[in-house]
Amino acid sequence: MDNSQFRRYGHEFVDWIADYLETIEKRPVRAVVSPGEIAARLPAEPPEKAERMEEIFNDFNKIIMPGMTHWQHPGWHAYFPANNSPESILAELLTAGIGAQGMSWVTSPAATELEDRVMEWLRKMIGLPEGFSGVIQDTASTATLCALLSARERATGFEANEKGLRRPLTVYATSETHSSLEKGIKIAGYGRENLRLVPVDSGFAMNPEALQGAILRDKAAGFQPAFVAATLGTTSSSAIDPLKPIGEIASRHGLWLHADGAYGGTAALCPENRWILDGAEKLDSFVFNPHKWMLTNFDCSAYFVKDPGTLIRTFEIHPEYLKTGVDPYVKNYRDWGIQLGRRFRALKLWFVIRSYGVEGLRAFVREHQRLARLFRGWAMEEPDFEVLAPSPLGLVCFRLNDGRGEEALNRLNRALLDDINASGRVFLTHTVLGGRFALRMVVGSRLTQERHVRLAWDIVRASGRRVKAEFSPA
Amino acid sequence: MDNSQFRRYGHEFVDWIADYLETIEKRPVRAVVSPGEIAARLPAEPPEKAERMEEIFNDFNKIIMPGMTHWQHPGWHAYFPANNSPESILAELLTAGIGAQGMSWVTSPAATELEDRVMEWLRKMIGLPEGFSGVIQDTASTATLCALLSARERATGFEANEKGLRRPLTVYATSETHSSLEKGIKIAGYGRENLRLVPVDSGFAMNPEALQGAILRDKAAGFQPAFVAATLGTTSSSAIDPLKPIGEIASRHGLWLHADGAYGGTAALCPENRWILDGAEKLDSFVFNPHKWMLTNFDCSAYFVKDPGTLIRTFEIHPEYLKTGVDPYVKNYRDWGIQLGRRFRALKLWFVIRSYGVEGLRAFVREHQRLARLFRGWAMEEPDFEVLAPSPLGLVCFRLNDGRGEEALNRLNRALLDDINASGRVFLTHTVLGGRFALRMVVGSRLTQERHVRLAWDIVRASGRRVKAEFSPA
Repeated sequence: MDNSQFRRYGHEFVDWIADYLETIEKRPVRAVVSPGEIAARLPAEPPEKAERMEEIFNDFNKIIMPGMTHWQHPGWHAYFPANNSPESILAELLTAGIGAQGMSWVTSPAATELEDRVMEWLRKMIGLPEGFSGVIQDTASTATLCALLSARERATGFEANEKGLRRPLTVYATSETHSSLEKGIKIAGYGRENLRLVPVDSGFAMNPEALQGAILRDKAAGFQPAFVAATLGTTSSSAIDPLKPIGEIASRHGLWLHADGAYGGTAALCPENRWILDGAEKLDSFVFNPHKWMLTNFDCSAYFVKDPGTLIRTFEIHPEYLKTGVDPYVKNYRDWGIQLGRRFRALKLWFVIRSYGVEGLRAFVREHQRLARLFRGWAMEEPDFEVLAPSPLGLVCFRLNDGRGEEALNRLNRALLDDINASGRVFLTHTVLGGRFALRMVVGSRLTQERHVRLAWDIVRASGRRVKAEFSPA
Repeated sequence: MDNSQFRRYGHEFVDWIADYLETIEKRPVRAVVSPGEIAARLPAEPPEKAERMEEIFNDFNKIIMPGMTHWQHPGWHAYFPANNSPESILAELLTAGIGAQGMSWVTSPAATELEDRVMEWLRKMIGLPEGFSGVIQDTASTATLCALLSARERATGFEANEKGLRRPLTVYATSETHSSLEKGIKIAGYGRENLRLVPVDSGFAMNPEALQGAILRDKAAGFQPAFVAATLGTTSSSAIDPLKPIGEIASRHGLWLHADGAYGGTAALCPENRWILDGAEKLDSFVFNPHKWMLTNFDCSAYFVKDPGTLIRTFEIHPEYLKTGVDPYVKNYRDWGIQLGRRFRALKLWFVIRSYGVEGLRAFVREHQRLARLFRGWAMEEPDFEVLAPSPLGLVCFRLNDGRGEEALNRLNRALLDDINASGRVFLTHTVLGGRFALRMVVGSRLTQERHVRLAWDIVRASGRRVKAEFSPA
């Protein structure tokens, strides 16, 4: 493709994206396809000869798009959102165009220095105390793994890197902690049996006294408690583990304190939400995802550490072919994480923060919280519906409850979820809270307005009536 | 930003990229800035108010661009390239515009099914035997870590995930193996002291008899040999470890055999290079990076495994909030690696493979190999220059050698490299081969033509004369 063709298709694709976002509401949120349906339309053999972009783009529209689930749809209330914005798309376009790889300072000094600066901006924006250093990771899964590895090395005096981890280090979290912690525990060699699930309170947040008890029991039994994960906005119910008492216990017993604010961290942009970070001065590491609730497209996870020296010592490698003359004077972010190669992700953060201003980002979070409270109010007022957890952020967990037994209720609500999603106009997902099947309604997509939340509620209510009638309590 | 502004800036940025690529040759390859220079031009405080895209883009051009090192420059002969192409940029634009996240089949069926299909295409394209299953990872570092973790679990009967790794598993590689292996060994809890460096032959490739000896010694000493990494195109010199004898030894002793073809794998597109995969049927896992030499922009790493069951069992997690009704019938790629969230990377591969056709991609590799041979020939013929390793792919390792002592030669060649790069017209990096400081000249950028390689050689020769005169052998 020559440059003139690139210009032509570039303009066409930009317009396609603008059209897509303008009309996204008309598409079903979830792809309406069966397993294998898309694959069946893709040739088994790679093309020997070059094909024209026109054909490829045509197939993109005919074959790929019907199989996409639309994360930017205003009816997206599933999981947590993966936010996006026109400004972030534009930055990604430039990033792709330049195609730089920022493993070392020298391989693009601006990529490193801009990352350093926007991470410092983010730290200030959410009110994380001074002294934390930031680095962009792809996902919170990776960031939490980095935390587990740094903690492992600190706990063993950097011996695990050398000899392997040969003694049981214990890790503390709750049943509500994100599954990436368990995954990280396996990867880092702690062993899943050394994960202690600390009981939660009625709002699904960690009970600090229970944490203290678990640590003491493990110490008495000869284990070495090493790591505690607090979650600021759990995936199931957005519960906020109380950082302050957890931090006091962690620091008393020498545990690494990591906070996973993948979803909730963005809320701290607003001073009225800053309580979730109360006690943050005790943190060793903290992660939140601008790609979830801060208009920056996936992937972009902001990881902060109190002591970058430990992080670097955990990961650094010094092969001859990567050495540069400026190494003593610069940050080489390759030593701040698992991957060697690094995309220039700071650019989109810079574009987003400047385009909206801190003020604009705050307004966005506030509006979503207001809409979630609205939905929560409706669900609480409606006979036969109940709310199953506090909603400190933008997530409401609810279910239909017409008084039938718990098992029947779980079946009923599973049917309710399917019926709601069959509408194609909204997409909700589920969880289980204390044994109860719960529907999760997240408000967090950029395009979601009050009318969409009202529509969602109308659909929920109509589906509620329908499934109640279909599944008689008998 | 409203949609009409998005269109306007989108068109402007597309044109900017076209202009950038058209005129990239006029820029110095490496950024000419000192540490801290870019940072000093970025405000310390995040903006409270929204700023206009015009200002942001202006700053991008004024502040960021002078600090970029241009990986797409035709004078890029450093490290390995991070290839790009107009078609790949266009696909990334669409990917960013849609903003989907492909952790599960249901979160975008087309993303999963297209990934499955293009990975199967890639397998066929490079002649990897049937029966390997593919998944896209971000980088080869991550892929190699996945291999180490799968091997750890297979070797311990999936006990390490549960209890932690409590016994010494040994790993085999050469001094030339990429540093990501050492990093992965630390992360996965093997412990660096359990890495055995197998001696290399005169061409820097693994000596299989030495491997066999090391395994036997370890077995006799009570270690459990678990993993051997063969490299197809080492970073320092592009040496090809001989897969066939290594595979026979690995299979005899029950070791996991991983091949790191991050750079070299793409060469197997051409039948005349397929010998590098001779013995591939014994592989347990294999990785190569389309983002290095196959016109696909960073990041995109193709990871293949013989037994996806082991990979999935190593990583799978089943939290309630991720369960879907179709789980038994579909691939959920979140269980094929470390991260939960996944970008839709298959789209750019699909665009690239179709746009160039296998034929076009082969022609691209062949031309680079031809140009590297040209350069190698010139370096061999030139008095005072010598070539330090075989060049089976697109990399030539050479140095100036006017007969002075080895230590003085190392100083001389370090000065040579600095002088060459000070030209701003080419960018080469270095390594050390058998104690000798070597300059690495890689031919692999999309825009590099014969005239650029001739220019590089002219610069090298002129710099050679200059530094020889400056650094008299005394």
